[in-house]
Amino acid sequence: MLERIRIVLIGTSHPGNIGGVARAMHNMGLADLALVAPRCEVITQDSISRASGADHLLHQATVHSTLEDAVADCTLAVGASARSRTLPWPMISPRELAERLPDECQPDSARVALVFGREDSGLTNAELQRCHAHVHIPTNADFSSLNLAAAVQVIAYECRMAWLSQQDTASTTEEPDDALVTHAELERYFEHLERTLIAIEFHDPAQPRQLMARLRRLYLRARPEKMEMNILRGILSATEKTADKHRP
Amino acid sequence: MLERIRIVLIGTSHPGNIGGVARAMHNMGLADLALVAPRCEVITQDSISRASGADHLLHQATVHSTLEDAVADCTLAVGASARSRTLPWPMISPRELAERLPDECQPDSARVALVFGREDSGLTNAELQRCHAHVHIPTNADFSSLNLAAAVQVIAYECRMAWLSQQDTASTTEEPDDALVTHAELERYFEHLERTLIAIEFHDPAQPRQLMARLRRLYLRARPEKMEMNILRGILSATEKTADKHRP
Repeated sequence: MLERIRIVLIGTSHPGNIGGVARAMHNMGLADLALVAPRCEVITQDSISRASGADHLLHQATVHSTLEDAVADCTLAVGASARSRTLPWPMISPRELAERLPDECQPDSARVALVFGREDSGLTNAELQRCHAHVHIPTNADFSSLNLAAAVQVIAYECRMAWLSQQDTASTTEEPDDALVTHAELERYFEHLERTLIAIEFHDPAQPRQLMARLRRLYLRARPEKMEMNILRGILSATEKTADKHRP
Repeated sequence: MLERIRIVLIGTSHPGNIGGVARAMHNMGLADLALVAPRCEVITQDSISRASGADHLLHQATVHSTLEDAVADCTLAVGASARSRTLPWPMISPRELAERLPDECQPDSARVALVFGREDSGLTNAELQRCHAHVHIPTNADFSSLNLAAAVQVIAYECRMAWLSQQDTASTTEEPDDALVTHAELERYFEHLERTLIAIEFHDPAQPRQLMARLRRLYLRARPEKMEMNILRGILSATEKTADKHRP
């Protein structure tokens, strides 16, 4: 899917931004960069420095004189846009774009262009009107102008999230390093805990208040693993041993 | 919600990155920036240029010598991390983090710290072990190192998306019956716990193994409330008293 997504930059004026875009793309697994009428050199010390190891994307980038040329083979073009335009156009959020991508990218011949405008003035109305839809990154109303590489970063991140969910890989949560304890092991812990709290004279079963209930709630919530339970039981045993020494 | 989220940068070495972070934050409606032991000047031509109009965040930023100081009042701390660590820790995606934020930010006293490490080496294990969870931005396995401002951009974007979706639907979540403890209270607990474990001869700081790290992980995961923390501290005090009686 990701190999069918092209990032198109129109009229970029700072090499550093092109480098930053290349880094953001490569980080997220995108590789197809097209530059339309760049207003600066593409391969400079600044762009290579900001690409930070992704400069092969700069060398591979195609350069075009017009947007039409850059997206000629594309089956979908989506332009990044601020919200208000004189002519309303289908407007989607980055997340909605991501939701459409798996279907849009399915055919072998599919090519999706994500088009970003100039640092100072964005895309022209004519350019926006060559796009099937516009994507608007939600921003602070008082400070809505994103850095170009930052905008590409957000969109590329959504592309990757869509791709990952398509892989149907399991959750990103790491496996715990040990199995959770069983209910019975927890109950034995609570018994041991209560005995120990009595031994150190912290707990008086005649006046229980809600002490054990509160401790149960805490440790049940924590879902201890077996290794952690061994530590907790070890602490209780060491505490009991200390209390025993004191006993006459 | 957004005003309760703090971006914490540890040991940043490039002023331009701090500026880029400020811009990304202001774009997404975040304003609370904390810098821990920055390895560069904060207010420079480069940082102001990259902030691109968000330089008031640089001037307002608080500077701290330690992570503990920067997150002392925080009820949740989440550290940005690459995937593999020797001691597995709860790992969430930026989207999963976003899903948790509305609830986490609900109490007036809530403060959420999102912690980002050094450009070259990220967060140390000790720093990661002060966090309740780790957030991993999914990246290309072959090119996983995100620019600092780009990483903040992705996380801040997810924060804003969570905030926007919260504006749509009023949350039905119940208030917890008691306030969560702050980071500083948890740290005092861990200090007290370590002292006590030494006193009962369960813990030998000369041979720490991963004892304190494992206990940290357990209690950070449990998210103790203030009332529960009072009980835990009370148990430690009673244990210490028992150990003292035994001492000759």
